[in-house]
Amino acid sequence: MTILGIDPGYAIVGYGVICAEGNRFRPVGYGIISTDAGEAFPDRLAHIYEDMKTVIGKYRPDVVSVEELFFNTNITTGIAVSEGRGVILLACRKAGLPIYEYTPLQVKQAICGYGRAEKSQVMEMTRRLLAFDRIPRPDDAADALALAICHANMKRSAGPGCIRDNLCK
Amino acid sequence: MTILGIDPGYAIVGYGVICAEGNRFRPVGYGIISTDAGEAFPDRLAHIYEDMKTVIGKYRPDVVSVEELFFNTNITTGIAVSEGRGVILLACRKAGLPIYEYTPLQVKQAICGYGRAEKSQVMEMTRRLLAFDRIPRPDDAADALALAICHANMKRSAGPGCIRDNLCK
Repeated sequence: MTILGIDPGYAIVGYGVICAEGNRFRPVGYGIISTDAGEAFPDRLAHIYEDMKTVIGKYRPDVVSVEELFFNTNITTGIAVSEGRGVILLACRKAGLPIYEYTPLQVKQAICGYGRAEKSQVMEMTRRLLAFDRIPRPDDAADALALAICHANMKRSAGPGCIRDNLCK
Repeated sequence: MTILGIDPGYAIVGYGVICAEGNRFRPVGYGIISTDAGEAFPDRLAHIYEDMKTVIGKYRPDVVSVEELFFNTNITTGIAVSEGRGVILLACRKAGLPIYEYTPLQVKQAICGYGRAEKSQVMEMTRRLLAFDRIPRPDDAADALALAICHANMKRSAGPGCIRDNLCK
């Protein structure tokens, strides 16, 4: 199963693609979609939408795993990130992909075994699980790979058909 | 000039189209795009995106006036509303339309002359300015018509080329 993990945003969107077979993960590709702060905001959204379509067309994932957003500090940034996430969800849905969403806590739990793991631990475990020599760069891409692994682990531990709760409602 | 006002959302998106010539406004059409709470969220976004394209194709506006979002209470709802606004902006931009955004305060100022006007006053002034017998229903559509009038008034009072500040950045 090919899983596309996405770390949503509007300035930088991270994506990471893995192939999961049983408890084996193979990295397929990763990177970022970045938009220029000099572009008008709707142009940045259009840019993200088109680039997401390109990523989906290139990797042809079976499923998408995207971070669920929470905001309690910078609401203005939160609005723009959510607007970016909206067009990402749209691109995935128009490609007919099932979309699962996970909280940062669930990602930490799935990768490191406990929800209060440090970001650096999640990065290191992501590196090991995918057998990279170094932690993938930038962080947004590594976060996206962690989301992809999270989905694979949750699906494996839950058994088939048992993770409807994380299906994007 | 044909102006499409949009009150963004994910459950209900209000839209209102007016034709503005000097200080005369003529209503062209208004309504809502509503999505079903039973639909998966990405499907609701796709629904809004497709229906926005239909509205734009039907009314062929010259410009779009959309509410700028602020949240300080219900952040969870705010995220979903922002995701909806993201796909609305995308539909408008992919149609090549210039997009202006106004705060609720600017709308009140433009319609009623002062920013602390009550919602009911804004509704009543919108009714009068568009020569409706009754206040348009539902509120989301009336809000969208107010946004369209707001853009016409701001543009008129500022003169050509002077409202770059409200161009969606």
